[in-house]
Amino acid sequence: MENFTYCSPTRYVFGKGTESQIGNEAAAIGAKKVLVVYGGGSAVRSGLLDRVCDSLKAQSIEVSCLGGISPNPVDGPVREGIGICRDNNIDTIIAVGGGSVIDTAKAIALGVPYSGDFWDFYSGKAVAAQALPVGVVLTIPAAGSEGSGNSVITLEAEKIKISLRTDFVLRPKFAIMNPELTFTLPPYQTASGIADMMAHIMERYFTPTENVEITDRVSEGVLKAIIEEAPKVMAKPDDYQARANIMWSGTLAHNGICGTGRKEDWASHAIEHEISAMYNVTHGAGLAVIFPAWMTFMAQRKPGKIAQYARRIFDVKETKDEAAALEGIECLKGFFGSIGLPVTFAELGVPEPDIDEMVRRLHINKGEIIGGYIPLRAKDTKEIYRLAL
Amino acid sequence: MENFTYCSPTRYVFGKGTESQIGNEAAAIGAKKVLVVYGGGSAVRSGLLDRVCDSLKAQSIEVSCLGGISPNPVDGPVREGIGICRDNNIDTIIAVGGGSVIDTAKAIALGVPYSGDFWDFYSGKAVAAQALPVGVVLTIPAAGSEGSGNSVITLEAEKIKISLRTDFVLRPKFAIMNPELTFTLPPYQTASGIADMMAHIMERYFTPTENVEITDRVSEGVLKAIIEEAPKVMAKPDDYQARANIMWSGTLAHNGICGTGRKEDWASHAIEHEISAMYNVTHGAGLAVIFPAWMTFMAQRKPGKIAQYARRIFDVKETKDEAAALEGIECLKGFFGSIGLPVTFAELGVPEPDIDEMVRRLHINKGEIIGGYIPLRAKDTKEIYRLAL
Repeated sequence: MENFTYCSPTRYVFGKGTESQIGNEAAAIGAKKVLVVYGGGSAVRSGLLDRVCDSLKAQSIEVSCLGGISPNPVDGPVREGIGICRDNNIDTIIAVGGGSVIDTAKAIALGVPYSGDFWDFYSGKAVAAQALPVGVVLTIPAAGSEGSGNSVITLEAEKIKISLRTDFVLRPKFAIMNPELTFTLPPYQTASGIADMMAHIMERYFTPTENVEITDRVSEGVLKAIIEEAPKVMAKPDDYQARANIMWSGTLAHNGICGTGRKEDWASHAIEHEISAMYNVTHGAGLAVIFPAWMTFMAQRKPGKIAQYARRIFDVKETKDEAAALEGIECLKGFFGSIGLPVTFAELGVPEPDIDEMVRRLHINKGEIIGGYIPLRAKDTKEIYRLAL
Repeated sequence: MENFTYCSPTRYVFGKGTESQIGNEAAAIGAKKVLVVYGGGSAVRSGLLDRVCDSLKAQSIEVSCLGGISPNPVDGPVREGIGICRDNNIDTIIAVGGGSVIDTAKAIALGVPYSGDFWDFYSGKAVAAQALPVGVVLTIPAAGSEGSGNSVITLEAEKIKISLRTDFVLRPKFAIMNPELTFTLPPYQTASGIADMMAHIMERYFTPTENVEITDRVSEGVLKAIIEEAPKVMAKPDDYQARANIMWSGTLAHNGICGTGRKEDWASHAIEHEISAMYNVTHGAGLAVIFPAWMTFMAQRKPGKIAQYARRIFDVKETKDEAAALEGIECLKGFFGSIGLPVTFAELGVPEPDIDEMVRRLHINKGEIIGGYIPLRAKDTKEIYRLAL
């Protein structure tokens, strides 16, 4: 086990009807003037946005709004939000939505007190040291951004998608999580979210660090819960209990508790980011394609942990590691398929991906070597893209 | 799943040599004058106390000390500590030790800014709303107090042992956790700590709330990790990796993550508290005696969750719930026995316990009905004590 520092101070307010507490929660962290960031029209149509704004105003909090944040969020709305905040002396950002909205809110929160361009933090030119406080009303369980210190933004002009990771600065002060708000998610988005949260755990699980039994077992527990509950939410979108289990799983998958004491990998995320940056596919669906390919690459070279995963998650009985690993990968693909996710580029709707270009961009953006379980160079990432064909 | 609010803001600094960071951590939370609370002589003899004080002084922090805190900590040293803090304008309490020391530190932290007697918080006369900040250097993984908002103190004159639970006020600001500091723990204390942390999970696992799969699976993960790592620390007390896994497990067992979304039980703790209050036995050892007895009582009345525990933790194959539950209880007793713990009153060194008196005191202290899995009255708790004979 590696030395680690872990601090997850986000206050989770979880359950039915909890969005009505947004005003109290915002007031409790001292909010006076907030920017409410949201996505497409569903938060408007459902009345959620009105309920959130009413609850805030009832606490005498001034509300500005920024809507229209898209999936795979880009830099434009971040700059717009920073401008609104500066013009209106906003002190707190409230995200109403999923990962794209929350990540945009975090980027705005970072940019407001910074004299340079917010992208400096994502490009590595500047180190995130302060940000406005962010509060969340979560509507899509997937990215785990409600409990993480991370933010993923794409620089639109250059199609560069970068994940910024901070230990503390970008962790939301509170996250309001009502599983009922997820009843209306379309099936593909629900399933993509499930793949995303599973990937967040697996990026941490496939580690070169040994003797992290406690973190392995917690990670396996969250994975097993997701795999058990996923078919229920797909079959019955308004199954409150299953939605609640999935929603909380998505937070635990990415608030760091599944990573304590070990090096993490994150190669599959990096590899996928080039797909969604170039082809604008849903991130979780891209991960459902790439992760099995990454695991297949590893099964042939370092099968140990993949085999442990196969045995503990999918009860694979095979005793030889490589064969067990490959069997586990088939189980994972079968699971993804069963909830309507693609597991090949063709199924993803990208029948002829420009692999050479993705590899080129990947290593320009992320460096010559990516990942930790086995560090990957361009010839390796190219093979992984190919394994996903 | 029940609605819940969860916030665990403690900053965990985990790993080899981390106690040298105590000065920095204390300075980071603004400490200027601290009271260092510790237990018996081992922290002195090992040089740990000197290292802690030196690190604090290197940050220009003024240090006062209060040593000699005993297991099953009592009110006397709490009052003494409150006096020292008031006389010296102490702003921060640093606990160097295990649960007894941390719980004493928390009680002092509560008492200093309160005009009445600190026991008011434990007796229910007053509600904990503020406390001095507490930092921890953990030396005994067991009570989980380094990550919890709880404090257990015994009012010595009346032998009343009360657990005070707060959501936030008493959670330590930081906890420094170096597994190397646990190498020298005597085997019985190591084993008792293991029983204590397992009990913290099981008190949350045996719940009347249904559909908490994610919390069940995380709890099972921590339990399985403990059961796997425990024999290693017993066989080789300086096995760093195993000690590290056990230490972090003890924190996760009690920082609330195993309780999210469900009612908890805590009957076994209440039942045990009367044993340790009357006979001054080690709390964890008392739990190793009482928990299987409590489970046996339940197996005959509401076996479902006990059977799930048996199947998922000990791989019991029996299909009938009551039989599976009873088989799982035998596995648990076997595990406790294998690490040198008692599972009966006689083995605990209390061959003729005054059960009537314990039952009487239990229900005076904790009310007519205790526990949640099945609420227990005096006739039931009496039977549980008897099942432990």
